[in-house]
Amino acid sequence: MNDRIRISVDAMGGDIGPRVAIHGAALALKERKNTSFIFHGRKEEIEPLLDEFPALKPVSEVRHCDNVIAMDEKPSQALRKGRNNSSMWAALQSVKDGEADVAISGGNTGALMAMATFCLRPMEGISRPAIAAIWPTLRSDIVVLDVGATVGGDAKQLVDFSVLGAALARALFDQDLPTVGLLNVGSEEVKGLETVKEAGRMLGHASGAGFLYHGFVEGDDIGKGTVDVVVTEGFTGNIVLKTAEGTARQVAGYLRSALTANFMSKVGAFFARQALTALRRKMDPRTVNGGVFLGLNGIVIKSHGGTDEIGYKSALGLAYEMARSHLIDKISEGLSRFPPIVESQPELEAEGKPA
Amino acid sequence: MNDRIRISVDAMGGDIGPRVAIHGAALALKERKNTSFIFHGRKEEIEPLLDEFPALKPVSEVRHCDNVIAMDEKPSQALRKGRNNSSMWAALQSVKDGEADVAISGGNTGALMAMATFCLRPMEGISRPAIAAIWPTLRSDIVVLDVGATVGGDAKQLVDFSVLGAALARALFDQDLPTVGLLNVGSEEVKGLETVKEAGRMLGHASGAGFLYHGFVEGDDIGKGTVDVVVTEGFTGNIVLKTAEGTARQVAGYLRSALTANFMSKVGAFFARQALTALRRKMDPRTVNGGVFLGLNGIVIKSHGGTDEIGYKSALGLAYEMARSHLIDKISEGLSRFPPIVESQPELEAEGKPA
Repeated sequence: MNDRIRISVDAMGGDIGPRVAIHGAALALKERKNTSFIFHGRKEEIEPLLDEFPALKPVSEVRHCDNVIAMDEKPSQALRKGRNNSSMWAALQSVKDGEADVAISGGNTGALMAMATFCLRPMEGISRPAIAAIWPTLRSDIVVLDVGATVGGDAKQLVDFSVLGAALARALFDQDLPTVGLLNVGSEEVKGLETVKEAGRMLGHASGAGFLYHGFVEGDDIGKGTVDVVVTEGFTGNIVLKTAEGTARQVAGYLRSALTANFMSKVGAFFARQALTALRRKMDPRTVNGGVFLGLNGIVIKSHGGTDEIGYKSALGLAYEMARSHLIDKISEGLSRFPPIVESQPELEAEGKPA
Repeated sequence: MNDRIRISVDAMGGDIGPRVAIHGAALALKERKNTSFIFHGRKEEIEPLLDEFPALKPVSEVRHCDNVIAMDEKPSQALRKGRNNSSMWAALQSVKDGEADVAISGGNTGALMAMATFCLRPMEGISRPAIAAIWPTLRSDIVVLDVGATVGGDAKQLVDFSVLGAALARALFDQDLPTVGLLNVGSEEVKGLETVKEAGRMLGHASGAGFLYHGFVEGDDIGKGTVDVVVTEGFTGNIVLKTAEGTARQVAGYLRSALTANFMSKVGAFFARQALTALRRKMDPRTVNGGVFLGLNGIVIKSHGGTDEIGYKSALGLAYEMARSHLIDKISEGLSRFPPIVESQPELEAEGKPA
């Protein structure tokens, strides 16, 4: 039983209700047999669903919980009303108590982040957690963070995010020294926000400690896959993520119109249907569903609230891989390899002065 | 001659040299006959090129200028070395002197913005200029600004950008009250950066003065075309623009791979070739080449430095339309319709207090 990955599921989180989570778990179990689940939520809704999936039922436990955090609840409200007694909180508590290796929820992102921070606490040396996205690029998948946990942030935070993102890349891609780039408006050292430039100086000093610092990257470097980890604060990161999703949908819309424009294009689409189906699958946002909360004493995966069972299965797969690869240990190791920020600052100041 | 649009061209700006500008002008002239050109740059390079285009030559004047601003020159350096005596400066000076209706350059963006600000000066009431992009969406073209003139910025600047962007939308799309949205991480009023929230309050008070304030928009609203004008500061705006370009290229790359994957997909691509060519044209970044500098006493268009004659023709078309629609007058009118910020601030403060 020791090599079993135990996933704690907020079965009530999401726009649609527990069906997506249970059905998704049944699909995930087919791909990764050594998984067990704790479902938190309303027993009367969850148990009949488990009866539909006979393979899932024996590896599942249901913990009853009446209180459900609404999708539009403010984080502070959610914390006040749902602390200790909501399905979201209970899912996190199972990780804290060591009953589960990872928690997952499709609920309200802000509430989940607030509760996770409160329940699991930030790791030592990390001031604020981040949300990382696994981003498909022309080269391979990369990590982009923060895509929405923070708004604004100083240089120290960007450095923290680099360490967190690099640990995630090591866990995901089996690389010893992933490359890290800071998102900026130009690749030259003179351009951009002061905080980003300051973070660049700090990372330059620490390159080699669990990652290679590449320098600044621009928006189009994300899709090219120029680096393994793209670091930015959550305001820009969230907007960038949604812009890219929107652009992909827009181009897919153009393609759909083009291929149904006339008889000949429909014939063409018929012949190319296999390739086009593969393309559709490649661009399906459900296959990369799941944001990883980084910087807390426990792994939490946020599934998209509006996804279906296929998307939920992907998020559960991500949760499984994060637990299996001992993400938290990799992050601790990354933090210990990193020279403490407090020591590097006097050195930076000294540089400006004549020797 | 009065209805002729006179375009002042920095013929030396760009990665490739004057050929792109001259050839682009010849193509632009075919589409818009009532255009004339002043080319600034090295006579010995420009004149032989004009000889190749007999229709262009009679409506063109060449002003010799030896000094060329390098693509990698820092703005401050460029200003120091190129003020009064570079082809870039001379192109702007022609607009200032009333010899031309609009200036265009494919040169170094930072240098062009610094010189344009110095030569043409910001309009009264505008603290910093912006660069606007014309962005194709699923609905129609929209305006996105600032895509790179500023880094950071306060609420007043975002309000300025809204007025400038709305004027551009009125000039471009023939709409009396374009909708304006502020780019943010969520559409709810409680989320996001303080400066964006403050700008939202100021715009809420002024909605109707040349535009309708829609509220906050998210990254995926850009591609959907939710509003006519999307406003953000230049750091996020530049990254968003490049991310979208990168994503479009990424998806196009996937499509290309899919349609050459096997024999059947190649057959399909053959039948659908007309539709696919139309799609390629639609997604061609050259068709939407050209950033508009807004907020200065004169219209300046920045063409992409690496574009070819087709891209340059598009940028010249944009320059023509901006001049023809009297963009500067529309902006002045927008600024006069807008309630002065200084008056609205005490009112905003008063709101927080009990009546």
